[in-house]
Amino acid sequence: MESLLLKDALVVPMTSQGEEPQSFRGSVGVVGNRIVMVSDEADCVAQFMAEHPTARVVECDGKALLPGLINTHCHAAMTLQRNHADDIPLMAWLNDHIWPFEAVQTKEDIALGMTLGIAEMLLGGITSFVDMYFEEDFCVDVVERMGIRAVLGCSYFDATIDKTLLLAERAIKAAEGKERVRLSIAPHAPYTVSDAHLQRGKRFAEEHGLDYMVHAAETQDELKQVAERYGTTPVRLMERLGLLDKRTILAHCVWVDDEEMEILARSGVTVSHNAQSNMKISSGVSPVQQMLEKGVCVTLATDGSSSNNDLDMWEEMRSAALLQKVSTMNPLSLPAYEVLKMATVNGARAMGHEGELGLIRVGALADLVVVDLQKPHLQPMHDVVSDLVYCGKASDVEMVVVDGRVVVEKRQIKGLDLAALYREVQQAVKRIVEQM
Amino acid sequence: MESLLLKDALVVPMTSQGEEPQSFRGSVGVVGNRIVMVSDEADCVAQFMAEHPTARVVECDGKALLPGLINTHCHAAMTLQRNHADDIPLMAWLNDHIWPFEAVQTKEDIALGMTLGIAEMLLGGITSFVDMYFEEDFCVDVVERMGIRAVLGCSYFDATIDKTLLLAERAIKAAEGKERVRLSIAPHAPYTVSDAHLQRGKRFAEEHGLDYMVHAAETQDELKQVAERYGTTPVRLMERLGLLDKRTILAHCVWVDDEEMEILARSGVTVSHNAQSNMKISSGVSPVQQMLEKGVCVTLATDGSSSNNDLDMWEEMRSAALLQKVSTMNPLSLPAYEVLKMATVNGARAMGHEGELGLIRVGALADLVVVDLQKPHLQPMHDVVSDLVYCGKASDVEMVVVDGRVVVEKRQIKGLDLAALYREVQQAVKRIVEQM
Repeated sequence: MESLLLKDALVVPMTSQGEEPQSFRGSVGVVGNRIVMVSDEADCVAQFMAEHPTARVVECDGKALLPGLINTHCHAAMTLQRNHADDIPLMAWLNDHIWPFEAVQTKEDIALGMTLGIAEMLLGGITSFVDMYFEEDFCVDVVERMGIRAVLGCSYFDATIDKTLLLAERAIKAAEGKERVRLSIAPHAPYTVSDAHLQRGKRFAEEHGLDYMVHAAETQDELKQVAERYGTTPVRLMERLGLLDKRTILAHCVWVDDEEMEILARSGVTVSHNAQSNMKISSGVSPVQQMLEKGVCVTLATDGSSSNNDLDMWEEMRSAALLQKVSTMNPLSLPAYEVLKMATVNGARAMGHEGELGLIRVGALADLVVVDLQKPHLQPMHDVVSDLVYCGKASDVEMVVVDGRVVVEKRQIKGLDLAALYREVQQAVKRIVEQM
Repeated sequence: MESLLLKDALVVPMTSQGEEPQSFRGSVGVVGNRIVMVSDEADCVAQFMAEHPTARVVECDGKALLPGLINTHCHAAMTLQRNHADDIPLMAWLNDHIWPFEAVQTKEDIALGMTLGIAEMLLGGITSFVDMYFEEDFCVDVVERMGIRAVLGCSYFDATIDKTLLLAERAIKAAEGKERVRLSIAPHAPYTVSDAHLQRGKRFAEEHGLDYMVHAAETQDELKQVAERYGTTPVRLMERLGLLDKRTILAHCVWVDDEEMEILARSGVTVSHNAQSNMKISSGVSPVQQMLEKGVCVTLATDGSSSNNDLDMWEEMRSAALLQKVSTMNPLSLPAYEVLKMATVNGARAMGHEGELGLIRVGALADLVVVDLQKPHLQPMHDVVSDLVYCGKASDVEMVVVDGRVVVEKRQIKGLDLAALYREVQQAVKRIVEQM
C-alpha cells in the first residue's frame, strides 16, 4: 500500500462533535486510503517513517492542511452551460436556453461537462461532491477516472421516472466495487414530481441501499404550487410521505418556518445550502443560522454552473457567512468555524461518512487539502480558520489528496490535459448551440 | 518613451456613455502612459509596429484585456489587522482590537501595511484605489514605488483635524510632480466629526484642489445619532453643509431614501458601494440598483481588510451583483455589465479621470489588465463579461499595466520580494500585539 507523510503543516483538524479544536503545527501520515497518524511530536513522525520507509514525504511548512471540502449539491455537467444565459428572467432562462440545450446534448457531452466540473472542483480543494443530473450511470467512470469521491444522483421528473430507475439499476452495476462512488435517487422537486413518484423513488433507494436527494423549498413559487396541490408546505409534505431521514438531502430549504426547521432537525435529513445560487436567481435567503441553532445538519454547496456560475466552495463559504450576517443584521451569525464545519464535517454526514470524512484524525479517510498561506491576501495570519474562510481562495489550494491518492499537485491535475479538454468542451458546446 | 503592444487579446473596451460595446479580438498599443491604438485590423497593428519598432510585444491569445479595476474605498494599511478580530460584536471589535492596535502602530507600520495591501490589489488587477487612513503623507512614496495609481485620503476625527490638515500640507508637497498620486481630505463620518469640521475639511480641499471623501449613511446607528444631533439624515445634512459635488465620494450609502438618492444624483457625488463589508459587519444592503436607476454614479470598493477581509474586486463585483439580485428578489438586478462599469468607468469618475480611465480607447491612460481565460472555471466561454464578473478571480490576472508600465507579469510584482515583506509584516504585527 502506498504511504504519504504531510510534514510540518498547520493542521486544521475539525471535529464533528464538541468545541472548535485548536489548529496546530504537526504532521499527518497516510497509508492506503486512511489517515494513520496525526501528531505534533517528532517521535511519532519518526516512528511512522520507520514503519513506512518508502512513504513519500511532502514538506508543508507555511501551509495549512485541512480536510477536503464537500460540495453537497451540484449539477457538475452543467459547466457546459456556464454563463450561457445570465441576467434574464427565470422562465426565459429555462424555456429558451437551459431546456433546449439539454434536449440536444448527448451522454458523451454530459460526461465531458462533468469532467470539466470535476477538474474545477479538484483544483479548488473539493474532494467530494453530491451530483444530481441525467445519465449518471455513464458518469460513474468519469468519477472513477478523475479520482474524486461522489454521490451521483439519478434525477427525474414525472415523465422520466421509469427510464431513470432503469438507468439507476445500470448505475448500481457500474459502481460495483468502486468505493469512491455512491448513488442516489434524486427526484427533481415536490412541485415537479408527484407525491406517488416521490415515494416510489424513495422506496427504490431503500431497496437498493441508495441515498435520496430532492430540491425543496427553493422558491416562493414552489411554495404556492405545493400549497395549491397538497394544502401544505414542501417539508411537511415530504415528512408526511416518509421521505425524510438520514439518507435524504434536501437542497436549498430557503423557505422553511420554525416548525419545519424542527421537522428537519428531528428527522435527521441534511440540508444543502447554496448561498450564491439562491442569491443569483433571487430565490431568497435561507435561515441557516436559525436551522443550525435548532440542530439541523446544514451543509454547503455550489449548485450548478448555470446558476452560480462556478463550482467554488471558498466563495460559497464566504458568501454563506456574509449573507447570514447581513440578513440577520448580526455580525456574530455564522462565524468562520461554523461555516467551515458546514463545508467539511456536516458535508461528511450528507455523504454517509459521518465521523470518517471531513476531519483529520486517525482512522479517517485520507481526503486532504494543502493550502499555500504565502499569499498577500492571507498575510499576516492571526487566525487560520478566519484566514481560510474570509480570505482563502480556490487558487490557494496547492495539493489535493483523495482516498489517499495525490490527485492535484502544484495546481496540476495528474494525468489530465486541460487544454485538450477545453478544446473538446468548446467543440461540443458549439455543436449543441448550432443544433438548438 | 517606452511602448507596448498587447496583441490578439479579447478586448473588453467598456464605455462611460451609451450601450455596452462589443468585445472583440484585437490589439492595443501603448506609448508612454497612454493608449494610442486599439484595433482589430492587422494593418493598424503593422503601422503601430512600424512607428514603434522597439515596442515590446505581448501575445494575448486566449486572454481577455480589460481596463484596470478601480477600488474607490479602502484602508489599505489595515491589512495588518486582517482577521485580527472576526465574528465579535462591533463595539468590542473597535474598543478591544482595532483602536488599541492603531494606538500602537507607527507610521512605518502603516507604510508596511499599505505595501502589502497594494501588493494584494495589484495581483488582483486593481490599478487604482482611493484610500482613507492616517499618515498618508508618509505613504505617497509607497504608492510611487509600487507603481499603482491612488487617491490618498487624509482621515480625521474632531480631535485630530488640525494635525491632519498640517499633514495634508506635507502630503501635497510629497505628491508634487507625482502624476499617479492625488490627495483627498477625508473626515471620518457625519456622526464622528462635527458639522463645522466637516465643512472646514471641504474648504481646505477646495482651496488646495483636493478631493473629499466621507463614510456616510453606513449604519442605522449612524442615522439615529445624526437625527438626534441635527434632526435630519446624513445625506441631507451633507447637502445642507455644501459638501456634495463632483469632487466628493460618499462611502457606503446603505441607508438612503428615495429623495436622498435624487440628491446624490443631482449633486454629482460618487457613491462607493462596499458589498462584502456591508454584509460582514451587518450594516445592511445598499439600494444600488435603485441608485443607478436614479442616475447616481455608484462605484465599487473593498473597504479595509479588517472588515472584508481581503482587497479583491472580483469578489466585490460578484457579491454586489448577487446581493442586489437577492435583496430586490429580481434576477435582472445589477447585471454583469453594470457591475463591471461600477468597477471601471464609474470608478474613473470618482478618481477624477472620467473618460480617460477605466476604459480602453485611444487617448485613455494605459491602466490595463490581462486575464488568462484558460482556466476550468472560465470555460467554456459564452459571454466574456458574464464570464469575468460571475466566474473571474483575482488569481486569473496574469499581467497588470499601470500608467503604461508593466507592474505585474506572470503573477509576479516587479521588484518586490514578497517573502521578505511577509516576514517584515509578521514582525511588525507581533511587536504591535505585544505592546497593545
